[in-house]
Amino acid sequence: MHQTFDAALEINLLHANQAGADHNRQHFDQWGITCLNIMSSPGAGKTVLLEKTLAALSKQLKIAVIEGDMTTQLDADRLRQYGVPVIAITTGRSCHLDSQMVAGGIHQLAKDYHPEDFDLVLVENVGNLVCPAEFEVGEHGKVALLSITEGEDKPLKYPIMFQEADCVLITKMDLAPYLEINVDRIINNIRQINPYAMIIPLSGKSGTGMLTWFDWLKQQVTTPHEIPKTLGAYAIT
Amino acid sequence: MHQTFDAALEINLLHANQAGADHNRQHFDQWGITCLNIMSSPGAGKTVLLEKTLAALSKQLKIAVIEGDMTTQLDADRLRQYGVPVIAITTGRSCHLDSQMVAGGIHQLAKDYHPEDFDLVLVENVGNLVCPAEFEVGEHGKVALLSITEGEDKPLKYPIMFQEADCVLITKMDLAPYLEINVDRIINNIRQINPYAMIIPLSGKSGTGMLTWFDWLKQQVTTPHEIPKTLGAYAIT
Repeated sequence: MHQTFDAALEINLLHANQAGADHNRQHFDQWGITCLNIMSSPGAGKTVLLEKTLAALSKQLKIAVIEGDMTTQLDADRLRQYGVPVIAITTGRSCHLDSQMVAGGIHQLAKDYHPEDFDLVLVENVGNLVCPAEFEVGEHGKVALLSITEGEDKPLKYPIMFQEADCVLITKMDLAPYLEINVDRIINNIRQINPYAMIIPLSGKSGTGMLTWFDWLKQQVTTPHEIPKTLGAYAIT
Repeated sequence: MHQTFDAALEINLLHANQAGADHNRQHFDQWGITCLNIMSSPGAGKTVLLEKTLAALSKQLKIAVIEGDMTTQLDADRLRQYGVPVIAITTGRSCHLDSQMVAGGIHQLAKDYHPEDFDLVLVENVGNLVCPAEFEVGEHGKVALLSITEGEDKPLKYPIMFQEADCVLITKMDLAPYLEINVDRIINNIRQINPYAMIIPLSGKSGTGMLTWFDWLKQQVTTPHEIPKTLGAYAIT
């Protein structure tokens, strides 16, 4: 969140965003769609995760992607190869998606497709471990990725993202042998911030943990609109 | 940058910040200090870079650090072990340092030490590849780190940071053998955004590139207040 030298203004900004998010969520609920907001630092593996997820699940579930980037359609083009609707939103100078931008994506989905046919909308946010966590876009759940290369202390140093997450994916586990980083300490640090989030160490490259992620994702669709919170839930794979 | 639904407000916000940055720079100039703003995504290696830099140069140059974090003093505590003044600024919910926060750090430096004794102030910004690039803090130059693990496309997707940088460090080069990532493509993508920045691939772990970084840094101190722009300057080490 940017400081604006005016606390009342910040509250108004978040309030306006929240009203838009509630409106978006009403659309999703009306159409029976589960929406998840996928967030992380740049380069933690959000797009690879979506590629693997679409390759594995797009026959079982009807999925659409809303793809946020500051500039370029590089990620949107990668994902379109999987034959699902990908709605690209370029945010320009903005460091996160807000509910107004996602509303534009939703209205486009409703114009070009039958939205009630869809099971799942995955929103890939701008790469930023800080700001996206404060701006709801109408999602039913938040997924935070943390690359193991980012270090053990990040959940403590960037707590808002990890407080808000329903599921934390520790990515690039294939690099663990080459790093002096202990995944158990990462998990303990997440637990200090959030006792409830599902935590899944995984690697898009080696495939480790991916089936657990697919199971968690399918569970959100079959029990929509309420992410079950299980104290201390995590999967070591 | 956050969209505030009000372009005039955004301009005012950046304008107020710039006035503060100019004020801070006047202090640095008056004391003969070079100030560099060190920025990157979370976990790209800013603190390791500062540790190695302080270990190598703190006998030759009189250095102080202004250390920005949302929460915790974990990084400040790591850097204090090198016997230099480390002024910690916790930004709370704010996703970047602004000139007002750094002014507080400068005034503390002037209160506790003789500021005219110092050669170099290194500002470690909050881990965020987007927002810090838009908020000057009074620095004479900007250093952007990009971990090789973040992928080849990041300079194109997060262009503002790379446009603004005087020096780009491609970090964690020791992991290159385990990644399907080509450092030449990263360099080409930076060059598309910025023809002038010094580009140094390096690794704090293996030491590769560190001497080139130290040389560049010392050059900024001996020719202060003007970062020389050399078309296409980069070092492959």
